[in-house]
Amino acid sequence: MPLLVMKFGGTSVGDLARIKNAALKVQREVERGYDVIVIVSAMSGKTNELVGWVEQTSPMFDAREYDAVVSSGENVTAGLMALTLQEMDVPARSWQGWQVPIQTTSAHSAARFVDIPRDNIDAKFAEGFKVAVVAGFQGVSPEGRITTLGRGGSDTTAVAFAAAFGAERCDIYTDVDGIYTTDPRISSKARKLDKIAFEEMLELASLGAKVLQTRSVELAMRYKVRLRVLSSFEDTDETSGTIVCDEEEIMESKVVSGVAYSRDEAKMTLVTIEDRPGIAAAIFGPLAEAGVNVDMIVQNISERDYDDHPGAVTDMTFSCPVNQIPRARKAMEDARASGIINYDDLAVDTDVAKVSVVGIGMRSHAGVAATMFKALAAENINIKVIATSEIKISVLIDRKYMELAVQALHDAFELEKSA
Amino acid sequence: MPLLVMKFGGTSVGDLARIKNAALKVQREVERGYDVIVIVSAMSGKTNELVGWVEQTSPMFDAREYDAVVSSGENVTAGLMALTLQEMDVPARSWQGWQVPIQTTSAHSAARFVDIPRDNIDAKFAEGFKVAVVAGFQGVSPEGRITTLGRGGSDTTAVAFAAAFGAERCDIYTDVDGIYTTDPRISSKARKLDKIAFEEMLELASLGAKVLQTRSVELAMRYKVRLRVLSSFEDTDETSGTIVCDEEEIMESKVVSGVAYSRDEAKMTLVTIEDRPGIAAAIFGPLAEAGVNVDMIVQNISERDYDDHPGAVTDMTFSCPVNQIPRARKAMEDARASGIINYDDLAVDTDVAKVSVVGIGMRSHAGVAATMFKALAAENINIKVIATSEIKISVLIDRKYMELAVQALHDAFELEKSA
Repeated sequence: MPLLVMKFGGTSVGDLARIKNAALKVQREVERGYDVIVIVSAMSGKTNELVGWVEQTSPMFDAREYDAVVSSGENVTAGLMALTLQEMDVPARSWQGWQVPIQTTSAHSAARFVDIPRDNIDAKFAEGFKVAVVAGFQGVSPEGRITTLGRGGSDTTAVAFAAAFGAERCDIYTDVDGIYTTDPRISSKARKLDKIAFEEMLELASLGAKVLQTRSVELAMRYKVRLRVLSSFEDTDETSGTIVCDEEEIMESKVVSGVAYSRDEAKMTLVTIEDRPGIAAAIFGPLAEAGVNVDMIVQNISERDYDDHPGAVTDMTFSCPVNQIPRARKAMEDARASGIINYDDLAVDTDVAKVSVVGIGMRSHAGVAATMFKALAAENINIKVIATSEIKISVLIDRKYMELAVQALHDAFELEKSA
Repeated sequence: MPLLVMKFGGTSVGDLARIKNAALKVQREVERGYDVIVIVSAMSGKTNELVGWVEQTSPMFDAREYDAVVSSGENVTAGLMALTLQEMDVPARSWQGWQVPIQTTSAHSAARFVDIPRDNIDAKFAEGFKVAVVAGFQGVSPEGRITTLGRGGSDTTAVAFAAAFGAERCDIYTDVDGIYTTDPRISSKARKLDKIAFEEMLELASLGAKVLQTRSVELAMRYKVRLRVLSSFEDTDETSGTIVCDEEEIMESKVVSGVAYSRDEAKMTLVTIEDRPGIAAAIFGPLAEAGVNVDMIVQNISERDYDDHPGAVTDMTFSCPVNQIPRARKAMEDARASGIINYDDLAVDTDVAKVSVVGIGMRSHAGVAATMFKALAAENINIKVIATSEIKISVLIDRKYMELAVQALHDAFELEKSA
């Protein structure tokens, strides 16, 4: 029997009517001949309520108890979804993590999968059950405690089940109807992609297109699980949504697939630091220890020789999420106080945005950067920082130009047209 | 190490402040040198919310899924209680039913305990944990599914743990400060009892003093678990509340311990039925099959010989909960239609109340009934039905006299004075 994994997020199961709507989609796949594993999140708002209670109770909480409390939301949805399917005469039952059992590491609140044994669920399929409704986001540790995978873990649960059960596809139902060339709220020319490569999706996800959790895409890429992102709230058929797949499956690819952006960036510059071997490690070591997620890094090699700074000096610029500025600043001040580094000034610019173009086609096409810079120059947008990877070029610009930049780049790479 | 079981009901853990208040009571017992097993209910309102969702989803729900959903409320409270205790530096952890594991029958939503193995929890006490916080009301079936014990099951969980772990006492924290000689809202002379025998508590509970679930008292009586009922919302010490215990522990007992009442009764009379062997079975068999909880039964032996009813005839009167009248009426009409019984009329009187005096002292004292009837007669209260057991005398009277009757009986047996 072919098998599908279908995952419904919090807004897709936010109330009983929505659970019913989701169940109808499951029923249709069963009628098409699939066995289905349904992965459910907690009803929207429930996890936040539980997290709030834990944090109010114990600011430095025991993560084992946090997991025991917070995982309960998914258990409720799993039971309600199984009941809804039963009402539709679809043989279904719910599974909590420990019943499968979904074996994870003991890293509470950030657990990783160790094994998903198929025996128990396969036995129920063999008995005639058509649907296994599994509580997402959770598992059980070697010590028999409940673990959670961290926020967004239900996507990862879905991909892990798809890999373990050799699912034909893993359908992620969410509140958007697919992956777009850019945010439709910013460019009216944004076009839904039929297919996108895992690598591209990873760059888009980490750049702010918050449809799929990064970790779930990584896992899907590793196990070659075909993902499909589609809407819970629309009528969908076999051609709906966007397929996220191996790049080999994408025959004809455009050079650039999408334009992403993020407002959540700040630019920090350490002014006048020594230009010596090891200086980068001396800066980014303390930042990493402080838990600062440094994204872009630029070192301006300076040949200047200031009178009051004998020897070569330089400036170091990096970007990080805005809310990590206090942590980053403290890490740098501590490092200076303890003599690890020295600098004249720490300049912070929060009025910036990051805009990126992403595409696996870049690997074989030159001139993408030139096209990008030309398009931005034509709009008189000044580039503050540039960073590149194999399939991505990102720039940091003044925040007020962000929308203009996205639109200009979408036009420049003709993303409104399909390949 | 001596061990206590402490149980907190839904209102006692209704919000984070109340959970903290309950945790303070646990901490105090730990400081006194006890290991403690805490049994918690769901936060008040939570179980009703979950039950509502299940019933809306599936009117004829799969009880296995019902249990999986509804049990989640207790898991949340258990985790929050463990966190609260940890914040007070009390080494504590939460236990869900399957982690103990609390083994029950497969009778979902009405499961009974099979075994509560001590090994896992004892091992944690041996490691230095002082408190095991156990989610009440739940267990796990031989098939590995979550079971629940039915409403009020957390009291029963508490008593079962007290029996399994040989607890010194099982403290039931609730929203009243003990068991009273009668309802203080009805008689200002009501007095809190220091001790009450299991048998008396059973009669009082089933008569409407809804402090302890009947099944938990039965279990406590069987395993001789000393229960204590006391308030979550007051400062309590070792002398607070009411002890429910074996009658041998009650040295000096009054003849009557309490006066109970119930407004939830209806009186039904089958008028002019045959007076023949088997007639009672012909009536109460169909009522039992229809799920009618018949309480009091009175047969008026009549020597009358009506012209139109050759042979001996009689009337049969019984009482049952008001909300079961439609079911009872249908059962009787069906029985008449199929020729099992015959009667002229089915008279229903819903304007009645039941008042009972309860006391283990009755066994060795004559004259209790006489005192009771005299006290009611002095107030001109007419008795409609009388029923007696070894330690209880109940009467059905006009509902409007209920409060007066309770007060008169409380006075007549001098319950305001301690033994």
